[in-house]
Amino acid sequence: MLLVQAGKPVDDFIDSLIPLLDKGDIIIDGGNSEFDDSTRRFERCQAAGLLFVGSGVSGGEEGARHGPSLMPGGHPDAWPRIRPIFQAVCAKVDGQPCCDWVGEGGAGHFVKMVHNGIEYGDMQLICEAYHLMKEVCGLSNDEMADVFTRWNNGDLNSFLIEITADILRHRDDDGKHTVDKILDCAGQKGTGKWTVVTSLHAGTPLTLIAEAVFARHLSRYKAERQRAAATLPGPSAAPPRPADPAAFIEDIHQALYASKIVSYAQGYMLMQTQSAQTGWKLNLGGIALMWRGGCIIRSQFLGRIKTAFERNPELDSLLLDPFFSGVMRQANDGWRRCLAAAVTAGVPCPAFSAALSFYDGFRCGRLPASLLQAQRDYFGAHQYELMDQPGKFVHTNWTGRGGQVASSTYQA
Amino acid sequence: MLLVQAGKPVDDFIDSLIPLLDKGDIIIDGGNSEFDDSTRRFERCQAAGLLFVGSGVSGGEEGARHGPSLMPGGHPDAWPRIRPIFQAVCAKVDGQPCCDWVGEGGAGHFVKMVHNGIEYGDMQLICEAYHLMKEVCGLSNDEMADVFTRWNNGDLNSFLIEITADILRHRDDDGKHTVDKILDCAGQKGTGKWTVVTSLHAGTPLTLIAEAVFARHLSRYKAERQRAAATLPGPSAAPPRPADPAAFIEDIHQALYASKIVSYAQGYMLMQTQSAQTGWKLNLGGIALMWRGGCIIRSQFLGRIKTAFERNPELDSLLLDPFFSGVMRQANDGWRRCLAAAVTAGVPCPAFSAALSFYDGFRCGRLPASLLQAQRDYFGAHQYELMDQPGKFVHTNWTGRGGQVASSTYQA
Repeated sequence: MLLVQAGKPVDDFIDSLIPLLDKGDIIIDGGNSEFDDSTRRFERCQAAGLLFVGSGVSGGEEGARHGPSLMPGGHPDAWPRIRPIFQAVCAKVDGQPCCDWVGEGGAGHFVKMVHNGIEYGDMQLICEAYHLMKEVCGLSNDEMADVFTRWNNGDLNSFLIEITADILRHRDDDGKHTVDKILDCAGQKGTGKWTVVTSLHAGTPLTLIAEAVFARHLSRYKAERQRAAATLPGPSAAPPRPADPAAFIEDIHQALYASKIVSYAQGYMLMQTQSAQTGWKLNLGGIALMWRGGCIIRSQFLGRIKTAFERNPELDSLLLDPFFSGVMRQANDGWRRCLAAAVTAGVPCPAFSAALSFYDGFRCGRLPASLLQAQRDYFGAHQYELMDQPGKFVHTNWTGRGGQVASSTYQA
Repeated sequence: MLLVQAGKPVDDFIDSLIPLLDKGDIIIDGGNSEFDDSTRRFERCQAAGLLFVGSGVSGGEEGARHGPSLMPGGHPDAWPRIRPIFQAVCAKVDGQPCCDWVGEGGAGHFVKMVHNGIEYGDMQLICEAYHLMKEVCGLSNDEMADVFTRWNNGDLNSFLIEITADILRHRDDDGKHTVDKILDCAGQKGTGKWTVVTSLHAGTPLTLIAEAVFARHLSRYKAERQRAAATLPGPSAAPPRPADPAAFIEDIHQALYASKIVSYAQGYMLMQTQSAQTGWKLNLGGIALMWRGGCIIRSQFLGRIKTAFERNPELDSLLLDPFFSGVMRQANDGWRRCLAAAVTAGVPCPAFSAALSFYDGFRCGRLPASLLQAQRDYFGAHQYELMDQPGKFVHTNWTGRGGQVASSTYQA
């Protein structure tokens, strides 16, 4: 089992191992490899008669000490042989191991990548809730810590909510809050970016994680932001503090919960599409269980996702599961009030906004894409499909000047 | 000059040309090549003593008939020799050619790609304005056509606004409006997607174009959307029609104009970053002039961008130019009212929302990324930078349990 730096070192190590191994031996890459590399290595090892496993490993320091979440994928024949070891060392929740077989080929590292993308989304959502409580309600760090602690005892119970409360309470030796001394420029190692790139190629709308990655990009423009803060106007009349802060904080809670459900629904859309496009047979319910403990995004919530896929293994979208659509029904109005207030107050909530735009688009039976198709046919003669005659594509001579000839060459 | 299908045919053609050419001859690829391919071909031709030019060509049917926008880049020595031809055949605005030298290497096709990405954004913005007028105000196609015609006589004067009015007025022989018969599933040829992928790698926040690409992805989920429309709740109390429809339509106008400025500002951030990372010396003001006529995104507006870069060739962001920051000042409140109404009414406006979130983030001197950095240090020991000691990175032992050792290996 290799735990070396992703990239060339993994290939070099496999080169040196192959001559030493017998047919049927197993090579496990437990590093943070890109799933395309794992797919390539899977095929290469198969050609050499070896069983390749690429396994996602998540959990940071705590996971390393108390058991990580393990996401093994690759050659299915390897699973029965590594299963006792993997399920012994991994984290456990309610006695169940946070490790199961993910799927074939590069599935293990693919699912770890999606996990990291979802982690980007969860972190951004928490930052937006914090920003709103701070700017709109004027809460102190200790007051916000209490809110996150309360939220951690409810639907939002999760590692990231728990540590956010710890962070907001933490003071340095000088008695000042640590968080207030930290430069607001976010780093990243690229796995969130790769999740978004993959969704762009797969044709899935991973809007929330994309906004989370872009929010980290924007945070790096510190000098420009400071110049802009002095130049660019916000709302001409800054709205007053909410009349009922507790009610507004509950609206933020609903916005965070609903947006989180949208983010996971988008992540599952990507995994379902990738599974269909690759034939990896992803274990969608099992993935939720693997993430329930050990890793950064561990939460109670993931048990609900497992249940949803038990109820309906063919589930199109988490949003269509009765439990989650019920939550959306409850969260709906508070989420909208929260966002309308953010828009009016000028507090940026890119992930909350992306989630609501997606939600309203997803539940829209008739999108304005019909106009967009007309535009493409107008300037590029791309043709459009008729609503009441599926499969029939026609071109309209919109101006009376353009020709009747349809084009399939204009690249837009 | 090659005008063949992008990809292998271009390489094959260059292979067959090279033996027939003399040192210093020019090969021009006028197809829709990816800029990475053009950069590679530029280097290959340079090694063979040839001058490669990759030129973006835009304009669809009309451009082909009345002069396109041409965006040539590659070997600078080729420009003086092709300039008289290119500037003769291209579109003209106020007597000025919509063609200038873009920059070196693959700059020509890169800028054409960004043009197409911006086109995706402009089209999505118009669709959202249409959707709001239809759903919130209940306007008819003919009434909306009149609004777009009016807008086309003002700040928003552009090809896409003009054709949108034509489209909304167009009726088939049966007397019914054509647009109402079109299936709301958008196609795409991938150039918008490549623009977003490029921005993810460049580290620039191209949020609006990303939402435009994702909106096309979401539109393809027609069956799921129809199921969701029957299942997922919108606002529990549908808001009444605006008391003053004309005022609300003006708010939509402000939202569209402000969002468009944000989209171009983001596109220019990507071009500036790419120019710095590649050394292509992109001609930023010239690019606006090239786009002013002939191509799909042609508009009056682009003249303002040219002027902004004349005023300050080192301009950090279009939003910081006095003209554009003045527009933002005027548009601000209407834009916010428009979005608050969309959020309350449940009409999806992903591009309007992404634009406002970006705007409020860009003018935010202190983003919640400080909390995000604390989270990364908490679970991954990534360290964070101190605000008042730039360049000083520290790790906090948040729990008292984790070690003092900082990590640079956990990939998040």
